[in-house]
Amino acid sequence: MSQNTVYIPADTLENFMYDVFTRLGVPEEDAKISAQILIASDLRGIESHGIGRLKLYYDRIKEGIQLPITNFEIVRESPTTAVVDGHDGMGQVIGYKAMKLAIQKAKEFGMGSVAVRNSAHYGIAGYYPLMAVKEGMIGFSVTNARPSIAPTFGTKPMLGTNPIAFGAPTDEECPFLFDAATSITQRGKLEVLARLEKPTPVGWVEDPLGNPLTDTNEILAGFAKDTAALLPLGGQGESMAGYKGYGLATIVEILSASLQTGSFLWGLSGIGPNGEKVPNRLGHFFMAINIEAFVPLNEFKKTTGEILRQLRASRKQPGYERIFTAGEKEYENEIRIRKEGVPVVANLQKDIKIMMNGLGLTGYQFNF
Amino acid sequence: MSQNTVYIPADTLENFMYDVFTRLGVPEEDAKISAQILIASDLRGIESHGIGRLKLYYDRIKEGIQLPITNFEIVRESPTTAVVDGHDGMGQVIGYKAMKLAIQKAKEFGMGSVAVRNSAHYGIAGYYPLMAVKEGMIGFSVTNARPSIAPTFGTKPMLGTNPIAFGAPTDEECPFLFDAATSITQRGKLEVLARLEKPTPVGWVEDPLGNPLTDTNEILAGFAKDTAALLPLGGQGESMAGYKGYGLATIVEILSASLQTGSFLWGLSGIGPNGEKVPNRLGHFFMAINIEAFVPLNEFKKTTGEILRQLRASRKQPGYERIFTAGEKEYENEIRIRKEGVPVVANLQKDIKIMMNGLGLTGYQFNF
Repeated sequence: MSQNTVYIPADTLENFMYDVFTRLGVPEEDAKISAQILIASDLRGIESHGIGRLKLYYDRIKEGIQLPITNFEIVRESPTTAVVDGHDGMGQVIGYKAMKLAIQKAKEFGMGSVAVRNSAHYGIAGYYPLMAVKEGMIGFSVTNARPSIAPTFGTKPMLGTNPIAFGAPTDEECPFLFDAATSITQRGKLEVLARLEKPTPVGWVEDPLGNPLTDTNEILAGFAKDTAALLPLGGQGESMAGYKGYGLATIVEILSASLQTGSFLWGLSGIGPNGEKVPNRLGHFFMAINIEAFVPLNEFKKTTGEILRQLRASRKQPGYERIFTAGEKEYENEIRIRKEGVPVVANLQKDIKIMMNGLGLTGYQFNF
Repeated sequence: MSQNTVYIPADTLENFMYDVFTRLGVPEEDAKISAQILIASDLRGIESHGIGRLKLYYDRIKEGIQLPITNFEIVRESPTTAVVDGHDGMGQVIGYKAMKLAIQKAKEFGMGSVAVRNSAHYGIAGYYPLMAVKEGMIGFSVTNARPSIAPTFGTKPMLGTNPIAFGAPTDEECPFLFDAATSITQRGKLEVLARLEKPTPVGWVEDPLGNPLTDTNEILAGFAKDTAALLPLGGQGESMAGYKGYGLATIVEILSASLQTGSFLWGLSGIGPNGEKVPNRLGHFFMAINIEAFVPLNEFKKTTGEILRQLRASRKQPGYERIFTAGEKEYENEIRIRKEGVPVVANLQKDIKIMMNGLGLTGYQFNF
């Protein structure tokens, strides 16, 4: 972190985000959900999807392309499934309610899944599986997003960073939680690099001729202009199996769009036919699997915990002292960040000031 | 293919495999299922999982570590879920029946999933989602396998190649089908390289110190001896996000083992405490999602087809004429191989002769 980074207690930032949302017209209960999901990201050390994204929601709500009041409409339902229309409301609120619905169905019938259309950016995908984990279930969520990944042998950003999130309870305090874009890196991480004024590593992003791009600001501006594309997990071409990352991104696109006849690929760009800003109309998919329908929960937890412990205890590569399992680093971040506070870098401080001034939030005395 | 490769009609090879299985004591119906799943792999051009694996099944059945008669026991069941014990029977038969069960549950309740324990190698994971696709559903299957992938920062083979298979119907003749190991490459591909006497590319496999290994025979012998490990999708370390491939492999291990309190990691090595061969006791997980519970099937197919067409039509990297979507290459292989026959390389011809002689299958006149 640069010298002028300040650390703000998570509770203070969560309150601040709640206040920003309510001032923007988000109902209290919904503002609470939204702030809670955003701060969960900061606490887990995922700086890209928490307070760092608040300005984006602020701008969109101000511009009228994301609605502060969320009309969560269940348009179709079966014992285990539902289709929801989010009507361009708050992505976090839509995600939270959709996952609740999937969990409720899994409680009753063993499995539950919900497909969502016309939603907005919903924060970290990993938040939703954790809701299922708390209920003793396996949780799963995916979402599509603005075009940024190029297909294998292609150079145009077509697929979103399309993350896959999967969580499972264990017999340890830290649950198993995988939450990752199907590209090598993702937009949020590039936004963090941009705020820190750092270049992007070679091999993560390509230009229209397939050459590597490393200027982070140029890259971020390039997705919408079609001059930069993220490479899928596995990289460019087939030699390191980049078609697998591309295929996984396509699975996420199908699950997120096809089960609700929604928008997809460039239909999610957020830019209308005349270059005007329009809602992103994202699609999500949520699933809960009730473990008790298969085996006693404590047996599942023990098996899963044992798998993770054996992985961690296995032989290390020389120079490396520790093997991690998914979710461990973030779990430890949370303990640390609750104590230390959330790092707020200079460019983010500017954003916060703009929102404070814009909304007349005079009650906050930040140290910048 | 080397000069002495011969091409055998798929039907002939399927019959041959059926005969091998029935002579080994597999009941007729089960032999039919097993041969059908194996030939599906050869037809799709996946040489690693078809006739090329027959000798492995032959050896195991002869050695008594895989049973020709499959006791498919449903040990627990709910409206949408089941746990099955395969009692060390035929992996293909267990997989086929488990997927049927998941499909049946999805027909009735919208979703269905089945966790399996004590199974054997079940062939290409992609066969099972295709069963669901034929019924107008999304299909999903994963399996664990003998240890071969090292965790990020580790060098010991711990996780199987743990493939993820996902299929969805489209409005085209070719369905979407993703079927890929969570490592960069997989055992079967290395077995094909070994039969062709070719080296393994740098970056796919590491030694106990984390250095690259390229001698294919040394690698294949090395997994069980713990002197070689596959690298996860994304490669070694974190720089190209290898932890994502490792995390996906862990998800597959959890889904395959924890929902049925089964064996995992080195418990799947097939080697007992005194170095003797024992059943692999693999676990699988199958899921079917009934599309009609969400949207009319033709709408789903149209959206999915449109996603795939737009991906294929997008801008190509200079030097590349075509962008593929998952399952396309294999679909075209099938059309070609049905005409040309299945390629059988020299080392595979030897295996076939051993089985012909061993079982007295005198009716076959192969051109080698």
